[in-house]
Amino acid sequence: MSPLLTDLYQITMAYGYWRLGMHERPAVFHQLFRKQPFKGNYAVAAGLASVMDFLRHWHFSEADLAYLADLPAPAGGKLFPADFLAYLRELRFTCDVDAVPEGTLVFAHAPLLRITGPLLQCQLIETALLDFINFQTLIATKAARVCQAAAGDPVLEFGLRRAQGPDGALSASRAAYIGGCMATSNVLAGQRFDIPLSGTQAHSWVTAFPDEQHAFDAYADVMPNNFVLLVDTYDTIQGVEHAIVTATAMRKKGVTLRAIRLDSGDMAPLSIAARRLLDAAGLHETQIIASNSLDEYEIIRLKQAGAAISIWGVGTRLVTAHDQPALDGVYKLTALASMAGDWEYKLKISDTAEKVSNPGIQQVRRYLRQGVPCADLIYDIPTGVSPQQVSLSTPHLTDAIEDYDTYVDLLQPIFRAGTCVYVPPDIHTTRATAQQAVQDFCQTMGEKVYPVGLEKNLHTIKLQLMSLQGVSV
Amino acid sequence: MSPLLTDLYQITMAYGYWRLGMHERPAVFHQLFRKQPFKGNYAVAAGLASVMDFLRHWHFSEADLAYLADLPAPAGGKLFPADFLAYLRELRFTCDVDAVPEGTLVFAHAPLLRITGPLLQCQLIETALLDFINFQTLIATKAARVCQAAAGDPVLEFGLRRAQGPDGALSASRAAYIGGCMATSNVLAGQRFDIPLSGTQAHSWVTAFPDEQHAFDAYADVMPNNFVLLVDTYDTIQGVEHAIVTATAMRKKGVTLRAIRLDSGDMAPLSIAARRLLDAAGLHETQIIASNSLDEYEIIRLKQAGAAISIWGVGTRLVTAHDQPALDGVYKLTALASMAGDWEYKLKISDTAEKVSNPGIQQVRRYLRQGVPCADLIYDIPTGVSPQQVSLSTPHLTDAIEDYDTYVDLLQPIFRAGTCVYVPPDIHTTRATAQQAVQDFCQTMGEKVYPVGLEKNLHTIKLQLMSLQGVSV
Repeated sequence: MSPLLTDLYQITMAYGYWRLGMHERPAVFHQLFRKQPFKGNYAVAAGLASVMDFLRHWHFSEADLAYLADLPAPAGGKLFPADFLAYLRELRFTCDVDAVPEGTLVFAHAPLLRITGPLLQCQLIETALLDFINFQTLIATKAARVCQAAAGDPVLEFGLRRAQGPDGALSASRAAYIGGCMATSNVLAGQRFDIPLSGTQAHSWVTAFPDEQHAFDAYADVMPNNFVLLVDTYDTIQGVEHAIVTATAMRKKGVTLRAIRLDSGDMAPLSIAARRLLDAAGLHETQIIASNSLDEYEIIRLKQAGAAISIWGVGTRLVTAHDQPALDGVYKLTALASMAGDWEYKLKISDTAEKVSNPGIQQVRRYLRQGVPCADLIYDIPTGVSPQQVSLSTPHLTDAIEDYDTYVDLLQPIFRAGTCVYVPPDIHTTRATAQQAVQDFCQTMGEKVYPVGLEKNLHTIKLQLMSLQGVSV
Repeated sequence: MSPLLTDLYQITMAYGYWRLGMHERPAVFHQLFRKQPFKGNYAVAAGLASVMDFLRHWHFSEADLAYLADLPAPAGGKLFPADFLAYLRELRFTCDVDAVPEGTLVFAHAPLLRITGPLLQCQLIETALLDFINFQTLIATKAARVCQAAAGDPVLEFGLRRAQGPDGALSASRAAYIGGCMATSNVLAGQRFDIPLSGTQAHSWVTAFPDEQHAFDAYADVMPNNFVLLVDTYDTIQGVEHAIVTATAMRKKGVTLRAIRLDSGDMAPLSIAARRLLDAAGLHETQIIASNSLDEYEIIRLKQAGAAISIWGVGTRLVTAHDQPALDGVYKLTALASMAGDWEYKLKISDTAEKVSNPGIQQVRRYLRQGVPCADLIYDIPTGVSPQQVSLSTPHLTDAIEDYDTYVDLLQPIFRAGTCVYVPPDIHTTRATAQQAVQDFCQTMGEKVYPVGLEKNLHTIKLQLMSLQGVSV
């Protein structure tokens, strides 16, 4: 992906820094989100693989430079002079990046990434990093919620046809797998990311034959090793009866109907009726797959209504994160080296206390009790860490983190001086880790708000900076 | 983009058709949506350029075939045999595609695309076509609504950082431009699609300096040809005052402050106060750009509140189509040649009358009055056309389309026997056409429902097919 995947203002500001001789001043930026998505109490980190891939190949090509050279300035003339473009031509990525591994539970305010390096580079990569992490973390979180609602039943991701563009599908399929989905229908995602595939049957197959019984018989004949039937093309209950006729004939040949799929109507009573018919025909091993505008809320509703559904096909509402299609992630300058080489801590003021950014060179210490996270503490690395924290919610309560067994620092080295030093686990391991973490967290925390605090010394630094900016606290 | 950008079931069904010797039977599919997005009364077609690009390069590579060869079947063994993969290796796209040009106003039920060709090919390309058209049409429509709300003020698209993946940003930037946006912040979208770019300034610039006044002065110094200031890093009104100091100094050098940008707070009173300060300082030519969770509803609210904003920066809510992040587009088999070579018309039944698909080989005739669309009629090409229509809303009312000056058939040849025969207008022409069409339509129709009818003879055919399937009508 080209480094032009950025906002124009990043390049104009980069030019400004360069002209002022500030472009190589060491800077620290942190990327975080400020509100848990879906009114939930956790999120699942994803997108780091895309960040790594982007930064590994980050380099302005001749075509990129030719395009930039040609851009007009609003007030006339060209936007960028040749000497700046010559600088970009030679530019290589030299930053340090520390990040939370994919599949880790993450919470509002605690940074997911820390980028340390020349001010100009940190600025140019901002927008792409936000795009990758915001979307994929959103979808991994949505998938985890859907899988929690499915309570152990397999969840299949079917979202490509209504996703937000090809990548809105591809990276969603990957994030949904990390979040706990069992498979995707998207063949290209399967190929690119080593994700299991799953597929059933479409209405077009059924309508391509003179009638439904012919369609089912023909399918069984040619696809005995992938024997699933979609039963709602004309009338669901009639469709189940046709499926039973085909399945009964195939059973004599030793072939099992793996599942029927319901795709419309009120699926609680329909699935109960279908289950009864299947059982009466001795097809106890045939599962019922449901699809049709499913999400965590609808799955919970269907389960409460006693639906006899054991596999959930989830598409549009998962891959677009339908009820909240964007994560509010931000990327903030938190420290900048002075001309003399000392760190100056930075923050952005807001009229909302929670939106005032946290300064410093941050690490996130996660305290665990019996292996389950019990609090996150954001601390400033140079200042050091005590388990005294100030809550980031209003009112700001100070207390000590107690009753923990152990802790771990979340941000791990990903790039050092522009070189990737991180070898991620394979995607299946990442998924398994995430699944276990979500399961344990939900059992322990329920819907309680997870405590995220600012380490007391860092909080004091923040208050001093705010008062320097004339803000009362 | 690889032909593996599809659902697995498309390939398993393709294999089934091939095994049954049905794969080359001529088929007709139509792509349409069934509900106007955003509770509005129109949509703007987009995405055909991506369809053309995808189909032009549609071909299974050796890597694709190797991946498919390795896929396991759920009941054991491999999913696809070698002879089927050998068939895919030789396969080339040979279909006809007819489509509505990008930038055209489109309405529920009337097809946007018709695909005619071998059943297997039509099936394999379905999912990618849905993905492209659903998303881009959604965003072009959202952009048109936002631009209507802005009532002639420029709208800038800023969505990359919270878009659904890189392509969720790139194709959104393109669709948003077609829908009426003036420029994008996304540099890569500008390069790829020849879209104007626009950029302002970020909070990080301001926080990188000792104070806001220094930050503004430094920016003016290095970027006089792109002189815009972001005023809300610490306090908006104070920021405006600092901007005025910098602008007044620069005016003496003949440099104009093009705009200030507000990005937080209640922007109606803030913009009014800012305008007053700018005017008092003689900076009448300095515009006010607003951004911060804007969409058509918020723009209307701000305008009604008298906001002194003249440029609108719209990001997340535009590129994710926040209030409805997916278009419900479908792709339906409507005719299949029998073994004897005659067309058999097809439909899919539903318990909702509006969801029963329309059979046949369709064209959409648009009737115009004084150049503005007044009705769309879906007709069956072999059956012919009369202006007698049956409404597709419930109840089904029959009437004649009258009082029109002229008509035009919307679906135009895009591919013939697999070769692209369509030369689209450039994107600027497409945008201008769309802007004019939206403007005229909104003036003429207001919020009235646009009439889309089924031609009477086609309606009769549909009823006959439904009764053959045992559905009462």
